[in-house]
Amino acid sequence: MLDAEQGYGLNPSAIDQAIVSLIMKSAGNPRISVRLWNGHEFPVTNEHPVACMEFLSRRAVLKLLYSPGLGFGECYSQGLIEVHGNFLAFTNEVTRAITRKGSREYYLPRLKSTLHSLRRNSPGRSKFNAHHHYDLGNDFYRMWLDERMVYTCAYYDTPGATLAEAQVAKLDHVCRKLDLKSGQTVVEAGCGWGALAMHMAEHYGVEVKAYNISRAQVDWAREKAAARGLDKRLEFILGDYRSIEKRYDRFVSVGMLEHVGCANYRVLGELIKRCLKPEGLALIHTIGRSHPDTMDAWIRKYIFPGGHVPSLSEMMAVFEPNRFSVLDVENLRLHYARTCADWLANFETVAEKVSATYGEEFTRMWRLYLAGSSAGFQSGTLQLYQVVFAHGSNNKVPRTREYQYPGSTGID
Amino acid sequence: MLDAEQGYGLNPSAIDQAIVSLIMKSAGNPRISVRLWNGHEFPVTNEHPVACMEFLSRRAVLKLLYSPGLGFGECYSQGLIEVHGNFLAFTNEVTRAITRKGSREYYLPRLKSTLHSLRRNSPGRSKFNAHHHYDLGNDFYRMWLDERMVYTCAYYDTPGATLAEAQVAKLDHVCRKLDLKSGQTVVEAGCGWGALAMHMAEHYGVEVKAYNISRAQVDWAREKAAARGLDKRLEFILGDYRSIEKRYDRFVSVGMLEHVGCANYRVLGELIKRCLKPEGLALIHTIGRSHPDTMDAWIRKYIFPGGHVPSLSEMMAVFEPNRFSVLDVENLRLHYARTCADWLANFETVAEKVSATYGEEFTRMWRLYLAGSSAGFQSGTLQLYQVVFAHGSNNKVPRTREYQYPGSTGID
Repeated sequence: MLDAEQGYGLNPSAIDQAIVSLIMKSAGNPRISVRLWNGHEFPVTNEHPVACMEFLSRRAVLKLLYSPGLGFGECYSQGLIEVHGNFLAFTNEVTRAITRKGSREYYLPRLKSTLHSLRRNSPGRSKFNAHHHYDLGNDFYRMWLDERMVYTCAYYDTPGATLAEAQVAKLDHVCRKLDLKSGQTVVEAGCGWGALAMHMAEHYGVEVKAYNISRAQVDWAREKAAARGLDKRLEFILGDYRSIEKRYDRFVSVGMLEHVGCANYRVLGELIKRCLKPEGLALIHTIGRSHPDTMDAWIRKYIFPGGHVPSLSEMMAVFEPNRFSVLDVENLRLHYARTCADWLANFETVAEKVSATYGEEFTRMWRLYLAGSSAGFQSGTLQLYQVVFAHGSNNKVPRTREYQYPGSTGID
Repeated sequence: MLDAEQGYGLNPSAIDQAIVSLIMKSAGNPRISVRLWNGHEFPVTNEHPVACMEFLSRRAVLKLLYSPGLGFGECYSQGLIEVHGNFLAFTNEVTRAITRKGSREYYLPRLKSTLHSLRRNSPGRSKFNAHHHYDLGNDFYRMWLDERMVYTCAYYDTPGATLAEAQVAKLDHVCRKLDLKSGQTVVEAGCGWGALAMHMAEHYGVEVKAYNISRAQVDWAREKAAARGLDKRLEFILGDYRSIEKRYDRFVSVGMLEHVGCANYRVLGELIKRCLKPEGLALIHTIGRSHPDTMDAWIRKYIFPGGHVPSLSEMMAVFEPNRFSVLDVENLRLHYARTCADWLANFETVAEKVSATYGEEFTRMWRLYLAGSSAGFQSGTLQLYQVVFAHGSNNKVPRTREYQYPGSTGID
């Protein structure tokens, strides 16, 4: 085996360039150029390169060769790889090339996903996982999320909508799908910083109980709700979804299923079965996939430990064993591509501040995570599903979906 | 074993009544009354009975006891059981009771469904199955379908819509979901009597190739299309979906998947993958279930040989191995309950004419099939899914669903 320490600072050899070409080929030959540590630059394809990827040492080449899944993320975060040009355009192009080249294999990724899903997120493990990501500090997220601190896919109902507008439109889109009526009771599982819970209580006149296992988020949400005078109709509970009690007219969960893990889908479904009234409506909003597969190794290791992004057939483990009737599924993947791009743009404006507090490696890691997520949704590697469902015997469900589009004027 | 021939014409004994009570208990004690062949009538529950079910001989009791799946359908068809009162109200009540009482078991029905799905419908077998149902004669279906001969779930977009209006609304709902633009090419798999194909060609200016394996239907459709001057833009092809060639802007299939069988879902998906252009949209409209299960034994034997009604997780075998992006799923089960009820009402007005041509047993079989289907959708045993999907890499998909509701005024 080659000694990874050998050749640092040395000029790249013909072997280095051959390995880089091999790596590019296995990534579907993206339309980028590559620069080596002696400054030598060459395009990967004949087409105009979208951006330039610079290997700052032989170590980066070898890490990508031996560990393509984790390698790029680790090298970029550590500064062993630099990207010149528009970073989002670069991640979009590389993701597009990898997806296009990607294996058409179905059964192997499905098997891997099944095996992976055997790992069960216990309440304690869930708390650890959530802490890893969501307790980074409210100050960190406030720097680049919208003012309501909504950390899930927005809904750009008009082409020119800003991130803040699109987040409000998403909250309303979810509320309309739930067909909320004043006086109803709603339980929310995994409420983040409480934006949806507050929006429902304030604008739809419902009573909300919202659960979350991140103390930093719950503290923030309670304070905001009190300041807005909503704490009479809205209670934030520091607790796991498994601790939900009583029965409600509506169940809603936005961006939690990704953390639940397949092994607990049926448990979640049973919980909803218990806590949803016979004529109730429920909505789950989650990142998904077009086909079963495991999560990106780098994301799993550094960003979302314990996470799993399900295909629709995997998600059905929430609904089918409990005989829920799935009423409506909407896929908003291109909205999430834009949401992540908007987050990234905000993030770049505060990147120096982030580096000052959390260090350069952290900033690079988050830049890659936001850009890579946007690229994942843009390329079709990731989907965003909103699923409305009800008890199988509930005949008081909306007959058509026109109620979701009260102001529709037929915009194309 | 009891001799089924014994005791015909004899007065019912206490044992007969005990067996009937047992049968009613196993059916979840529907709110009906039971009359035995000596005229003795008793209610099953304390509540007001919806209708009266009469056993005309001991044979009916024994058939229901030993073969509950097939027994009722066979006894009713043969006149061994009579129903007094509103027949649809009776089937609704019995189906509701059975569904409510029904096993909460998940894995066993799923296993049965999986085993059942191993049976593959070859092109020859598909032809036989289709002939059994669809080649009964156009004259038969013309007696009770709407004038366009649409034999799938209608869409009652306004509460007072007639069957004919709701069928046109369904055609437009499908066309809108497909985002049809003048000049596009559309392929339809399983086109029935051609109503959708003609509607698309006439009102949306698209070029249509429509496939069907029922000669009676294709002959009828060709004649109508020629009479309406649509044959330049519309071709009906007597052929199996597996014989579809070339590439199209749109793929649509309404009410065919029920006949395809799980074993061929992936084949169907591969076909769509081949024949749908990169920026195309596709729609599948099918009867479904909330959870995997086998088809009703009587329906399978007498009405739809070779049929299978899939749950969403089973349907995903069309989409996931081919990495289609599922964009939109809508469940219209209550619309199908009403459609079947409207068909039944039409059917009753011509029941005597049907009996004169096809015999009394045929008429009773069809009455039960239509009423039982309506009850299946009403009770949640059956669902109706419309699924819009696209290639995983297609970013030219509609951003929101507002385009589906051009005239929406927010009707609840």
